[in-house]
Amino acid sequence: MLKDINSPKDLKNLNIEQLEQLCSQLREYMIECCSKNPGHLGSSLGAVELIVALHYLYDTEGEDKIVFDVGHQAYAHKILTGRREAFVNNRKKDGISGFPRMAESPYDAFGVGHSSTSISAALGLATAAKLSGKKSKVVAIIGDGALSGGLAFEGLNNAGTSKTDLLVILNDNNISIDNNVGALHEYLLKISTNPTYNNFKAKVWNSMGDGRLRKAIKNFISTTKHNFIKHSGGDVFESLGFRYFGPIDGNDLEQLITTLQNLKQLRGPMVLHVSTLKGKGYKPAEDNQTTWHAPGEFDPETGMRITHKRKSDRFQDVFGEVLLELAQKDEKIVGVTPAMAYGCGMSLLAEQMPNRFFDVGIAEEHAVTFSAGLAAGGLRPFCNIYSSFAQRAYDQIVHDVALQKLPVVLCFDRAGLVGEDGATHNGCFDLAAFRSIPNVTIAVPGDEMELKEMMYDAATIEEGPYIIRYPRGCGVGAKWRENEPKGLERGRALKLLQGNDIAVLAAGPVAYKLAAAEYEPENTPTIYNVRYIKPMDASMLQDIKGYKTIITVEDGSIKGGLYGEVCEYMGEYAGEMRIIGLGIPDKFIEQASQREQWQECGIDLEHILEVILKEFKKIDKKS
Amino acid sequence: MLKDINSPKDLKNLNIEQLEQLCSQLREYMIECCSKNPGHLGSSLGAVELIVALHYLYDTEGEDKIVFDVGHQAYAHKILTGRREAFVNNRKKDGISGFPRMAESPYDAFGVGHSSTSISAALGLATAAKLSGKKSKVVAIIGDGALSGGLAFEGLNNAGTSKTDLLVILNDNNISIDNNVGALHEYLLKISTNPTYNNFKAKVWNSMGDGRLRKAIKNFISTTKHNFIKHSGGDVFESLGFRYFGPIDGNDLEQLITTLQNLKQLRGPMVLHVSTLKGKGYKPAEDNQTTWHAPGEFDPETGMRITHKRKSDRFQDVFGEVLLELAQKDEKIVGVTPAMAYGCGMSLLAEQMPNRFFDVGIAEEHAVTFSAGLAAGGLRPFCNIYSSFAQRAYDQIVHDVALQKLPVVLCFDRAGLVGEDGATHNGCFDLAAFRSIPNVTIAVPGDEMELKEMMYDAATIEEGPYIIRYPRGCGVGAKWRENEPKGLERGRALKLLQGNDIAVLAAGPVAYKLAAAEYEPENTPTIYNVRYIKPMDASMLQDIKGYKTIITVEDGSIKGGLYGEVCEYMGEYAGEMRIIGLGIPDKFIEQASQREQWQECGIDLEHILEVILKEFKKIDKKS
Repeated sequence: MLKDINSPKDLKNLNIEQLEQLCSQLREYMIECCSKNPGHLGSSLGAVELIVALHYLYDTEGEDKIVFDVGHQAYAHKILTGRREAFVNNRKKDGISGFPRMAESPYDAFGVGHSSTSISAALGLATAAKLSGKKSKVVAIIGDGALSGGLAFEGLNNAGTSKTDLLVILNDNNISIDNNVGALHEYLLKISTNPTYNNFKAKVWNSMGDGRLRKAIKNFISTTKHNFIKHSGGDVFESLGFRYFGPIDGNDLEQLITTLQNLKQLRGPMVLHVSTLKGKGYKPAEDNQTTWHAPGEFDPETGMRITHKRKSDRFQDVFGEVLLELAQKDEKIVGVTPAMAYGCGMSLLAEQMPNRFFDVGIAEEHAVTFSAGLAAGGLRPFCNIYSSFAQRAYDQIVHDVALQKLPVVLCFDRAGLVGEDGATHNGCFDLAAFRSIPNVTIAVPGDEMELKEMMYDAATIEEGPYIIRYPRGCGVGAKWRENEPKGLERGRALKLLQGNDIAVLAAGPVAYKLAAAEYEPENTPTIYNVRYIKPMDASMLQDIKGYKTIITVEDGSIKGGLYGEVCEYMGEYAGEMRIIGLGIPDKFIEQASQREQWQECGIDLEHILEVILKEFKKIDKKS
Repeated sequence: MLKDINSPKDLKNLNIEQLEQLCSQLREYMIECCSKNPGHLGSSLGAVELIVALHYLYDTEGEDKIVFDVGHQAYAHKILTGRREAFVNNRKKDGISGFPRMAESPYDAFGVGHSSTSISAALGLATAAKLSGKKSKVVAIIGDGALSGGLAFEGLNNAGTSKTDLLVILNDNNISIDNNVGALHEYLLKISTNPTYNNFKAKVWNSMGDGRLRKAIKNFISTTKHNFIKHSGGDVFESLGFRYFGPIDGNDLEQLITTLQNLKQLRGPMVLHVSTLKGKGYKPAEDNQTTWHAPGEFDPETGMRITHKRKSDRFQDVFGEVLLELAQKDEKIVGVTPAMAYGCGMSLLAEQMPNRFFDVGIAEEHAVTFSAGLAAGGLRPFCNIYSSFAQRAYDQIVHDVALQKLPVVLCFDRAGLVGEDGATHNGCFDLAAFRSIPNVTIAVPGDEMELKEMMYDAATIEEGPYIIRYPRGCGVGAKWRENEPKGLERGRALKLLQGNDIAVLAAGPVAYKLAAAEYEPENTPTIYNVRYIKPMDASMLQDIKGYKTIITVEDGSIKGGLYGEVCEYMGEYAGEMRIIGLGIPDKFIEQASQREQWQECGIDLEHILEVILKEFKKIDKKS
């Protein structure tokens, strides 16, 4: 049946049994595709009924809009809206994005990737529709994890007084990527497990759907209000100006359709709280939800995950172990993460020293200002945020940390191009964004051992912030576990290779890769591992004035980062050297493998070596 | 009496009558000082009793910490903590900051300026104290306006499950800078005006303070819970894991002291909701709270405000009128402001077209994502945010607007150095931060007419974002009301003066000031008004290759902005020209007049002219 669904209108004539069958087929197809081509399976399995119900009921071909949050749960949406076949190339180069994207489909009402944007965006769409005289219905689907982000609260707070027709579906699966934390989470859990829930179902639901719609709705609302909300505590949302309904079973298609049919008749801002099971319909994923959030390849029959042996440790492994090591040596060291304990490696600290580990939930702004408070109180927090998500905390880093010179260590994991997650998750802008902020140190380790060294150095600061940014994935194989840190000089570059005419200034692991390449004796460049973008090593900058050509290499935006720092330094010098910048060009880089993205940007090893050779030839011609 | 208070310990032996007298003297002194040396009077008048009660009861000389939010309400705190005499130089060069600053006083537990940081910072301080085995009490004071910022919610959400001793005082004066908006505001209003409030006071308060403390506390809590919270709705905070108390009259010193004395005995996270009157104790300020938020100079006897005639219109006046004009011509144009309708000039649109005006409260992130939603829905929003506060929405501008190329116009008022508000409010980093973001247009008007032209141009965009950044204060006197826009070419610079040898590339009003200066014929530079930082005019960049020296001038960070763009462009060119950058150096610039700040940074007209002349002399020597 799935193969006949090419757009939401093909759903409209199906009956409930057929729709349920379709849900099963969607699951099978997603499991099959994701087993070969990894993706965010768990959330998407949980949201199948929700998405089928919405496209069945709403005019998503016309003016009605569904706005997702984060977008991990949107696979069924993509498959039902003309991207069934394209889904085999989910997250691949020239394939479709793993997230809803406006540029990809008219059914993607608003692009997502970062958390907690849906309510604000949906309110904007609903307001625009109202002002334009359109009768659009706008639905935002937000997970319980994303609700902890401050932006979601700002959206609720504004929408609650807006008198706009807006349905917020709280898709509560009681788990975000890591375990969900925070008071709101506990509150939602209390609602969901309240015994009045069953009463509610029995009394209200059975009275509905008998054709006498108006009366049913009236009953629905008043019963809900009096028998349910007052007892369950749904009035957090009521206090914010929303009508609250639920929680209902979000994997029960019939109940979902009945409820949504009724809610469609109502005006104003509403919250429908649905409980879904992350991984629903696939037992391995139901049983181990964190692992199956993004399981990688697996055998769909057995649920065995296919793991490829890594050629070296990942930077996140280094971070996790070294943080624990530092914490064991110094009781001032603590760890802060906004919901990425597992992904960044901080789960080690969490296990060993739970009282010095702080997972604040999806709340990057708070993670930084809370860290600033910890530092003001005499501790030395290591706050780990993925580079792309650190954009959320830009102001907190400037205003709460840098301005006050507080000794906060900010570790930006997943800096640079990140591969399959694509444009929303690339960490391209951190060097440019933070280089202009006073008091900031920016370190870029070239290998695993340097990350360790820099973390040891950062643990000693009296003033901060100290940013360490490093890429997603594996290092270059440096022996970091075996070696004790020798201490590295803050702000000092490392010359890796001495050559002539051309000086290459590289940031990150590419420096060691370039130094390990083979060069002809007459065409050997000097290669620096810059190590620090700020402060940049003045003796290196002085030294390179003697070269004919300088080539900078960075896994970051070509505007404003390493290239910018070097060009600005040379501005007053007025030498005749050419400065060539290799980095991420001035555009957003779409999903592909990390390697393909590096190639697209010309910052893969092969291309850099080509550029070096070409420049040697130019110099040769001139002289 | 006030003159004998040099630190909080001098309060400890005063009795309640003396403390009340002290409150009066504090008010008189603040009114007197602010009448001559303008500041944020209204909020500080309202918070006098609160601050006296806290310093009286808490060990702020020792380990107890008071964390303010925004800091507009902290004047009494400054005066009581050793800065009584320094207060006459409040907000002045080499004087004290208008906001709490850690570097200024050990009593300033955490520096502020931007909104909604206090709960996160206080939780950090409280957590650090707990881990260090200190028995600190930590109090955050947050206004009802600041509570609408998402960061405050993230802080509450995390603190609510933290089991940390933290008292959040919600200083509810029912008005932020502009009228407060949002659902939470309406909710707080409902609590404050609930008739059970008086019951509560009568029944509970009178039973307290009779010496039987323990019993009183027990009563206090249980009565509060049962008679008050259940009816009033204080359980938004209860749901987030806080014990909620109040509201009580925050200008009733005796009640405050009794309540705080009781709360000091309790553990865990608590909210005390106090109602205060903004402008309390000074009738003109009580009667007109928005005006008296920051009234400027005034006669303390009569309350007559002393206004100085402006030599020209302010940029905010231009913005306000032109936005209305555009909105009248095009029904797609709407206005969005995060609580700065009056300050940015959007109050005009609010009056004339209330349904196309959106004040979202202090919520910059939401302001931008909501604008993105409006744009996705076919409208053309003009979202006005002060440059410094736009730092809060950095990720939303990148992820929700730029990545999707949505036609949102972002007007950054108060860009560059802003004067008396100092380091937290300077808008130094916008050019550097946004120049590296793909798809972004950055326009810098040189005068009032150019702001008008750029707004007209921005109103036509199909893709965005289109940033227009302009300074605080008056323009250069261009006739913008009389002239119809002729249309200006997007991305094109304007040559204002043709000279030799030196090309000056200036951004903002300084361009016209430089062009109007007198030069000797042989020492006349070419002067460009760059108008656009991105895209930068390629023909101008080509043209200046013929010059010996290039001088860039910007009211923004010298790292990464205009200077960066020019240096990066010239990187591959390898010419012998020197590029000299004049801008804000790599440090935070403290409070002073705007003119003094420009002087400190060497971007005042006189210094720029000196640099030009010096460079001419160097060229002269060489040739």
